[in-house]
Amino acid sequence: MTQGSTTLRVAVFGENRHEKVDPRVQELYPDGMHTTIAEALRSTLAADGVDAEVRVALLDDIEESLSEEALARTDVLTWWGHMAHDDVPDEIAERVARRVREGMGLVPLHSAHYSKVFRLLMGTSCNLLWRNDGDEERVWTVNGSHPITRGVPHPIVIPEQEMYGEMFDIPAPDELVFVSSFSGGEVFRSGCCFRRGKGKVFYFSPGDQEYPVYHQAEIQRVLANAVQWARPEPREIAPVKIANAPRDWYRDEETTRVI
Amino acid sequence: MTQGSTTLRVAVFGENRHEKVDPRVQELYPDGMHTTIAEALRSTLAADGVDAEVRVALLDDIEESLSEEALARTDVLTWWGHMAHDDVPDEIAERVARRVREGMGLVPLHSAHYSKVFRLLMGTSCNLLWRNDGDEERVWTVNGSHPITRGVPHPIVIPEQEMYGEMFDIPAPDELVFVSSFSGGEVFRSGCCFRRGKGKVFYFSPGDQEYPVYHQAEIQRVLANAVQWARPEPREIAPVKIANAPRDWYRDEETTRVI
Amino acid sequence: MTQGSTTLRVAVFGENRHEKVDPRVQELYPDGMHTTIAEALRSTLAADGVDAEVRVALLDDIEESLSEEALARTDVLTWWGHMAHDDVPDEIAERVARRVREGMGLVPLHSAHYSKVFRLLMGTSCNLLWRNDGDEERVWTVNGSHPITRGVPHPIVIPEQEMYGEMFDIPAPDELVFVSSFSGGEVFRSGCCFRRGKGKVFYFSPGDQEYPVYHQAEIQRVLANAVQWARPEPREIAPVKIANAPRDWYRDEETTRVI
Amino acid sequence: MTQGSTTLRVAVFGENRHEKVDPRVQELYPDGMHTTIAEALRSTLAADGVDAEVRVALLDDIEESLSEEALARTDVLTWWGHMAHDDVPDEIAERVARRVREGMGLVPLHSAHYSKVFRLLMGTSCNLLWRNDGDEERVWTVNGSHPITRGVPHPIVIPEQEMYGEMFDIPAPDELVFVSSFSGGEVFRSGCCFRRGKGKVFYFSPGDQEYPVYHQAEIQRVLANAVQWARPEPREIAPVKIANAPRDWYRDEETTRVI
Repeated sequence: MTQGSTTLRVAVFGENRHEKVDPRVQELYPDGMHTTIAEALRSTLAADGVDAEVRVALLDDIEESLSEEALARTDVLTWWGHMAHDDVPDEIAERVARRVREGMGLVPLHSAHYSKVFRLLMGTSCNLLWRNDGDEERVWTVNGSHPITRGVPHPIVIPEQEMYGEMFDIPAPDELVFVSSFSGGEVFRSGCCFRRGKGKVFYFSPGDQEYPVYHQAEIQRVLANAVQWARPEPREIAPVKIANAPRDWYRDEETTRVI
Repeated sequence: MTQGSTTLRVAVFGENRHEKVDPRVQELYPDGMHTTIAEALRSTLAADGVDAEVRVALLDDIEESLSEEALARTDVLTWWGHMAHDDVPDEIAERVARRVREGMGLVPLHSAHYSKVFRLLMGTSCNLLWRNDGDEERVWTVNGSHPITRGVPHPIVIPEQEMYGEMFDIPAPDELVFVSSFSGGEVFRSGCCFRRGKGKVFYFSPGDQEYPVYHQAEIQRVLANAVQWARPEPREIAPVKIANAPRDWYRDEETTRVI
Repeated sequence: MTQGSTTLRVAVFGENRHEKVDPRVQELYPDGMHTTIAEALRSTLAADGVDAEVRVALLDDIEESLSEEALARTDVLTWWGHMAHDDVPDEIAERVARRVREGMGLVPLHSAHYSKVFRLLMGTSCNLLWRNDGDEERVWTVNGSHPITRGVPHPIVIPEQEMYGEMFDIPAPDELVFVSSFSGGEVFRSGCCFRRGKGKVFYFSPGDQEYPVYHQAEIQRVLANAVQWARPEPREIAPVKIANAPRDWYRDEETTRVI
Repeated sequence: MTQGSTTLRVAVFGENRHEKVDPRVQELYPDGMHTTIAEALRSTLAADGVDAEVRVALLDDIEESLSEEALARTDVLTWWGHMAHDDVPDEIAERVARRVREGMGLVPLHSAHYSKVFRLLMGTSCNLLWRNDGDEERVWTVNGSHPITRGVPHPIVIPEQEMYGEMFDIPAPDELVFVSSFSGGEVFRSGCCFRRGKGKVFYFSPGDQEYPVYHQAEIQRVLANAVQWARPEPREIAPVKIANAPRDWYRDEETTRVI
């Protein structure tokens, strides 16, 4: 079975709280940031010839949209949250983190650096510096052979953005893909790949709710690249062949002795 | 202030449960594994000319020995636990993890791969394979310029040990130092460095309670190297000098805007 | 343009010297190791649904088979060499290394750890330990979400092999995929990913000429996964958009000021 | 033997060509950049309580100052070169690279990214973008627990500097320590750690000859930290203890079978 032969099932999680209370955000994203992101993924993945299904999951319907069953049918989950991180039940955050360890891809966006799920997977505070003054952000590629950089200009220029700056308290990324500068002089590791268990995580920092970042074509290109990169590897593990080798824990977890 | 000018304050955490119930362990470690480890660190660090204080912390006195005050006076914490991981209060596990992010070194030993503290810092399941058949373990150095390998034979031979095997579900180590083989044919990443926040973590797998591993001089050498490596870096950060740069979050946390 | 829409052009480089002088090798590989490897790639890639062209390049025809023109039409090059590394002209080794930096994938096999090309790209001695006693080798996966592990048993068991052991003097791999044990007790980082410039390199150690390693289906699966992983990323870099940003050096090298 | 018990022997290599022809450089560095760097190391290391000997090596005396004998007595070598990289004989560049693999530390500065030695150790083109317009550079720490960041402000501000920008064609650093921004909007990985064989390499980009960068106290602090970090680890490897294990290649190279 090749990777391209199955449907890529994406869920776009949106907190959808700023959209309810902030006129500026309503103007930029009348149907919510999640709608803009979902539509961008649909059209960009279609243009790439990828068979994909993209659904929206909201904090308001989180018990259903991120249920065990729903997550079992999800290959990659993008996550936007900010003012209501605490409203995500601990149990659901743990469930999502476990699914990532089992193979589901995760793409946390912007202020999701502080989401429960991302912090559970990183093990660090995920603190950073910030200043919301409408700085110009330039997103530079530092790893030109990485698939997430496909079709991406060098740099991406975002005319106005909130500044996120170092030190960003994350583990050293397994692969560093993008580094941003801001007109105020700061720098930020803005595109970072991590592997956790069998799952892949790509944190991407552009995207504050007060600026039309997700309407920008180059940003949509990165998002589409990221969900393709983060999709689970198809696994067809052959049976373990030798007598004294223990069983494969991720294949036959119920029969494997794990301490 | 140079690194060598201050006392290295080490705490050796011992679960001390097997020692209470298992005659085999009592025979090998009549005063508990923690005592053997603490004495080995005292003598080896003294031989290295390091000014060090080594204290013992037990699960039985964990409220005091790992209190906020006690941890604030601890530079590096070694951790051995196995059958009673769940008896460590969540609050204390979180406290220790936070102290690591603030700079304290951590050296989890053997079955501490499954401790609450290590899992909080890794973000993964920390599963592995195991088989307790008294395999010979050989610990090979794969990074010959790393300070933790100072004075260590290539390989260390442990005559009898519990087997720990891959896949070990951890994030890719920032530095891989040792890889072990077992007479049953398995391999294991047995010495792994991680940085989390300002703190350093060195996981070292040799050391099952049923074998005299911590009496072995080469193992004691690794432990002494590890606590020296993991000690916090002295920080003397100068004030931030420019107008539009945000304040340093780890210096003036109370005055820094962190999202 | 999506990755799957173009033909994957593979060249299988074979030194083809042992095959001329060693009856044992002639018996195992009557048409040369390169033929076995090339046929394995053709059939495995076809089974994966990958549109691929696989050609053979020999030391005997190296001026033509690894000419500038031939390399310009090559996406991934596998490399087997041993007794005649010095017969590869320096100029051709430099040419191949440059092509890797420009994006071509490279898969050095077994004793190619000592090839000129691999050493040019690593910057280290690439020394290792060895002992040819027909040890059983077990190849364990340590990174279960990596595409090169697709369909690979855990472990692969190679009944007889030359032992390669640590310390293997390479830079720390960007991604460590496989670690092997040998019946003599040694360990080896047997599957290692590196990025050099825009190109990807996967070193894979199984494959001594005195054993039928390349006839083994699991090894052929790894080779087919590796050439798919190592293929160049399609690049469609948009023009740089802003006034004071320098031009993209890898897009318009002739117009870019590089120091 | 502890690390602090022996003298740290540093050699400061200076190309010393701009100093002969460029009035601006002569004004900033009347005794040559190498003299400023050497004196800064002497005073800063002395203030740190480190027993150190710092000598100067010049391109004009390179046959003696970087002879086999001289290098054998050198623990860490800093390297500044620019307009005369090609005048360093290939044989000497190879010798220095070999010594790094054997354990000597190397600290390439600024335009030494293009030196023969650095390129030999990296295996890549080491290309980068540049623009010499007197940009302000800010050097941000991204790894707050790294010893090279000790006592370093966040950020270091360099009032005027040549811009170096991404993509910097190096292998992914083993540890990324500093990232710089420039007033023109570019970013650069300005402090990068690599291990090559038993030696450590720290590339540090600030320091163009047309600006008084090496007179700046914060830069001198980084240089002093870097040579301490890069010094060789004392090795006291015990004899290999078991029958069928091969000999340690880096201990008894003459008796070890290396392929």
